[in-house]
Amino acid sequence: MKRITILSLMTLAVEEPSVGDTLINLAYSIDTFYFLMSGALVMWMACGFAMLEAGLVRSKNVVEILTKNIALYAIASIMYMLVGYNIMYGGGPNGFIPGFSFLLGADNAVDAVLKSGGETYYSSMSDFFFQVVFVGAAMSIVSGAVAERMKLWSFLLFAIVLTGFIYPVEGYWKWGGGFLDSLGFLDFAGSGVVHLCGASAALAGVLILGARKGKYEGGKVKAIPGSNLPLATLGTFILWMGWFGFNGGSELKISNILEANAVSMVFVNTNMAAAGGLVAALLLSQLWFGKADLTMALNGALAGLVAITAEPLTPTPMVATLVGVIGGLIVVPSIVFIDKAHLDDPVGAISVHGVVGIWGLIAVAFTNPEGSLMAQLTGIGVIFAWVFGTSLIVWTIIKAVIGIRVSEEEELEGVDISECGLEAYPEFTSK
Amino acid sequence: MKRITILSLMTLAVEEPSVGDTLINLAYSIDTFYFLMSGALVMWMACGFAMLEAGLVRSKNVVEILTKNIALYAIASIMYMLVGYNIMYGGGPNGFIPGFSFLLGADNAVDAVLKSGGETYYSSMSDFFFQVVFVGAAMSIVSGAVAERMKLWSFLLFAIVLTGFIYPVEGYWKWGGGFLDSLGFLDFAGSGVVHLCGASAALAGVLILGARKGKYEGGKVKAIPGSNLPLATLGTFILWMGWFGFNGGSELKISNILEANAVSMVFVNTNMAAAGGLVAALLLSQLWFGKADLTMALNGALAGLVAITAEPLTPTPMVATLVGVIGGLIVVPSIVFIDKAHLDDPVGAISVHGVVGIWGLIAVAFTNPEGSLMAQLTGIGVIFAWVFGTSLIVWTIIKAVIGIRVSEEEELEGVDISECGLEAYPEFTSK
Amino acid sequence: MKRITILSLMTLAVEEPSVGDTLINLAYSIDTFYFLMSGALVMWMACGFAMLEAGLVRSKNVVEILTKNIALYAIASIMYMLVGYNIMYGGGPNGFIPGFSFLLGADNAVDAVLKSGGETYYSSMSDFFFQVVFVGAAMSIVSGAVAERMKLWSFLLFAIVLTGFIYPVEGYWKWGGGFLDSLGFLDFAGSGVVHLCGASAALAGVLILGARKGKYEGGKVKAIPGSNLPLATLGTFILWMGWFGFNGGSELKISNILEANAVSMVFVNTNMAAAGGLVAALLLSQLWFGKADLTMALNGALAGLVAITAEPLTPTPMVATLVGVIGGLIVVPSIVFIDKAHLDDPVGAISVHGVVGIWGLIAVAFTNPEGSLMAQLTGIGVIFAWVFGTSLIVWTIIKAVIGIRVSEEEELEGVDISECGLEAYPEFTSK
Repeated sequence: MKRITILSLMTLAVEEPSVGDTLINLAYSIDTFYFLMSGALVMWMACGFAMLEAGLVRSKNVVEILTKNIALYAIASIMYMLVGYNIMYGGGPNGFIPGFSFLLGADNAVDAVLKSGGETYYSSMSDFFFQVVFVGAAMSIVSGAVAERMKLWSFLLFAIVLTGFIYPVEGYWKWGGGFLDSLGFLDFAGSGVVHLCGASAALAGVLILGARKGKYEGGKVKAIPGSNLPLATLGTFILWMGWFGFNGGSELKISNILEANAVSMVFVNTNMAAAGGLVAALLLSQLWFGKADLTMALNGALAGLVAITAEPLTPTPMVATLVGVIGGLIVVPSIVFIDKAHLDDPVGAISVHGVVGIWGLIAVAFTNPEGSLMAQLTGIGVIFAWVFGTSLIVWTIIKAVIGIRVSEEEELEGVDISECGLEAYPEFTSK
Repeated sequence: MKRITILSLMTLAVEEPSVGDTLINLAYSIDTFYFLMSGALVMWMACGFAMLEAGLVRSKNVVEILTKNIALYAIASIMYMLVGYNIMYGGGPNGFIPGFSFLLGADNAVDAVLKSGGETYYSSMSDFFFQVVFVGAAMSIVSGAVAERMKLWSFLLFAIVLTGFIYPVEGYWKWGGGFLDSLGFLDFAGSGVVHLCGASAALAGVLILGARKGKYEGGKVKAIPGSNLPLATLGTFILWMGWFGFNGGSELKISNILEANAVSMVFVNTNMAAAGGLVAALLLSQLWFGKADLTMALNGALAGLVAITAEPLTPTPMVATLVGVIGGLIVVPSIVFIDKAHLDDPVGAISVHGVVGIWGLIAVAFTNPEGSLMAQLTGIGVIFAWVFGTSLIVWTIIKAVIGIRVSEEEELEGVDISECGLEAYPEFTSK
Repeated sequence: MKRITILSLMTLAVEEPSVGDTLINLAYSIDTFYFLMSGALVMWMACGFAMLEAGLVRSKNVVEILTKNIALYAIASIMYMLVGYNIMYGGGPNGFIPGFSFLLGADNAVDAVLKSGGETYYSSMSDFFFQVVFVGAAMSIVSGAVAERMKLWSFLLFAIVLTGFIYPVEGYWKWGGGFLDSLGFLDFAGSGVVHLCGASAALAGVLILGARKGKYEGGKVKAIPGSNLPLATLGTFILWMGWFGFNGGSELKISNILEANAVSMVFVNTNMAAAGGLVAALLLSQLWFGKADLTMALNGALAGLVAITAEPLTPTPMVATLVGVIGGLIVVPSIVFIDKAHLDDPVGAISVHGVVGIWGLIAVAFTNPEGSLMAQLTGIGVIFAWVFGTSLIVWTIIKAVIGIRVSEEEELEGVDISECGLEAYPEFTSK
């Protein structure tokens, strides 16, 4: 609010610029502002994941999952600034091995922007902001799947590696102009780069970690209900809202008629896919289980969102709804099946972000005329192989060196006391 | 984040447009962006209603009210896309009977926008987005009033009809250019079209449904306290925030000095009316009941918001505060009176959105020089008669065909288990 | 949504304006829109404080803290409209004694804006909106520190004085162009004007009020755990998000390349400082207490945010992270020390906003080349002396006249029942 200083600076800075230059200035400011607002919405998704996961675990493990979620976002911010961003967008010799540049220097000079005639059209610092919140989202996916049994610091150690290295490398392959991009692999806002990535890392973690005690005892699947469903619903609403920034911002430009139309289409399709996914999963759960299962409905909405993320621009709203509906129809049996396979994923993250992420990537081949099924399958295979493989190695090393799982006693008592020394609801739960 | 593709497209698209064309492009992009951000805030209100209602019902009915709230938003999105939007904005032969057009085709062509000289000034897809979130709000009002006893699927069936038909028809009469608009009925952002509509449908539902068991036994009014007041407060804050999009976006344009001033005035007045309503209701509850009743304060804030919605532009901030104050002073006795009349509205929705909605519409006659009391009263009568009448018919049909009310046993046990098979807080509540 | 009316107005208003005038119109609209969005985010912080504080107190005092938080925001809005804004920005004879003007009249006339050649570059009503939400933030800081024992109406009475008089006067000294500004005191978005102000008032309140019963009995410090940590985490995420508006909007302009770059830098640095503060506090709590203390992590994030608020523009992201890290390292021992000094601050507000606010103001001398340590220290001293001194007087008068503290019985039972007549979680807590 340095009102006075700024006003005088402004008068200095303006000094009769040409009309063409002013137009470039205005467009640059609109696109930057749009980027920043989109980024703030994506940052908000970190809170959505935290609330969703805190609502879906038992009350004795809530503080720890909250700590993991907010800490992973902080770690992602720092690691991506130090390392990740530079790997992902630093170019590279051949499209496979990323380069490394220190990208966060001075922002675009005014002269350079004007000379570019509008080709450089937004603040590079706003680009970093938009990118950094995406990494947080990728990592947030992991925390839910390994909830209620993984050591806090082992998890945060993994967060350092995923956000600093694993994610940026595959990010480079697609969005940094690497070989997946050259191949024609399409992934508008990251069904693959973000969601499949998170789910693949989560799957590796679940495999190394094993199931929660008592979950599959005697060969039976025991349902472990979440402790706070309003919190889970709040988380889903937050994610739904934040997704307008996630997908809407990924158009990367809004400052002309065509682009404004495109961003609007992305907003509408994002909303429609979520709606379709929710209704489909709710109906399916009613027909299959005889109950309108709220957690399935929430997962259905998220499935719709994940599914449309790979291509929210080219489908009509009707088709987008359908893409979401199919996402919702996939996610319910996927959760059931993965549970039956004794892969213990407390929040269904592998199904929502992995299985449905794959559906979203495949759908592009049908909803975008430029999509190629082969390229999409290649992208899916490459992202999964890279993230799953490296994650498996990292989890294994962490396990060997400092251990990955809390003791049986701690798990029984709840990780909140042993890891964080606090209870989430000290007055509500009787022990 | 298809960075590279977009950049090349852009260079193609730019090709030295004239200054006039670029100005139109920029204004179009600003207005579209403003529309999208406003819409995202209104979408957020769906979460606000969900949290508010989940906080105000008993814990045994929380999962169900959450399911209703998120599902109704999804249904509203789909029905409004398929039917409602086309009815509401499809024109019509005579201002009474709406037409039907398939409006969600291609967005505005660049040439057409440029040729219009800026008269077409935002993406029609962004318009749909802004409109579709409004329908969700109207329907969200209903769920609270019929909480804790209505069957889930009966409610969702009603949601289909209201969002697809009942709301769009009266919406057409005012915002679609129908006879209420021609008559001079003023309703800036929907004290009538949205809030009175929701409340009228809710009243019809409450009448058909009857009160909760035990609420009025022995002729006495039994208070049934909400289970989670932080949730209710969160919901109110969310609604307050979302209302900046609801009212602020309803100016429909921001891209010049006059319009930017107008939107700013709407933001300020919206905030002031909420503040006035809250303080008035809090003071009144202290004086009347001897306690600073939080739920009354929350309803006071919402009353202020509903009251100013019919005309947030023409009053000064001081007058807007007063409009809110009167809203707050109305809502408290209205809730008490409606309860005494044995109309069981667990969250006070009929008072907040209906009674105060009417006050807001009447206030326009005094705060807007163009307002006419007769036109306002006509609008109130027409909207109420239409929505209440059709809703009564629809609820009656639903009741006859599939039933509308859960069994006494289910109501006693709570609808969460019987309808959704889940508990909201399985570890907190002792049974 | 008065679609038709507006369109016709528009055609009237446009009437072939010159290119230069249209450019001024567009820039004005962008800056106003950016102001309004920033303001909406800051308004959202009121909810963040409410959730944070409601999560950190015991369940028997939750309704009252919620009531205080939402009511103080409403009171701040009204008082700042009636009095505060006019004091803060009404100029004054000598930089010490503020003047008083009725500022909320008509917004900028179009002609005047055009004639100013863009020097008047945003709606003055949007400026009021952005300013008014700041007052709410300052007052929100106080409620947490005096929680669980102060009378509701005594608190709200103090809110009237702080938001109407105490804050605006020191606000005038810096942002209204008073003597602190002339002195070279730098405070970009209010580490001092807002956060130190709130903390100083809180400290005075805590001193007058005394500690909660049982907190320091027998000379020992008894830990009183918060009742709902997901709520506290939600509050922190909300504050983190809202801070993008708080700091980002305080650049006051975005409509050219330089300013868009500046706002982007502020967003990035705000995020990095929060991340740094969180990680530092989490690590410190692990090393010091042997546990990853979530509440310390949350306070660390807030400390990072407070610390960077005095200067989020000039540091590089790396330096901003460091400013946050130091904030996080300060806040943990500060909370411990203040508790050991038997100053009972249930949420750590004095440490987070006061101690770290001072750190943030001092840091400016090192991160901004224009900063002067002497000026910063003077600003700190002046703000603290003014706010602490006047607050002490006001609290004392309130104590003498209507009393400030609830009775011992009420405190034992919880203030929710005695003050508000409601329980926050009537079904969860066993009594």
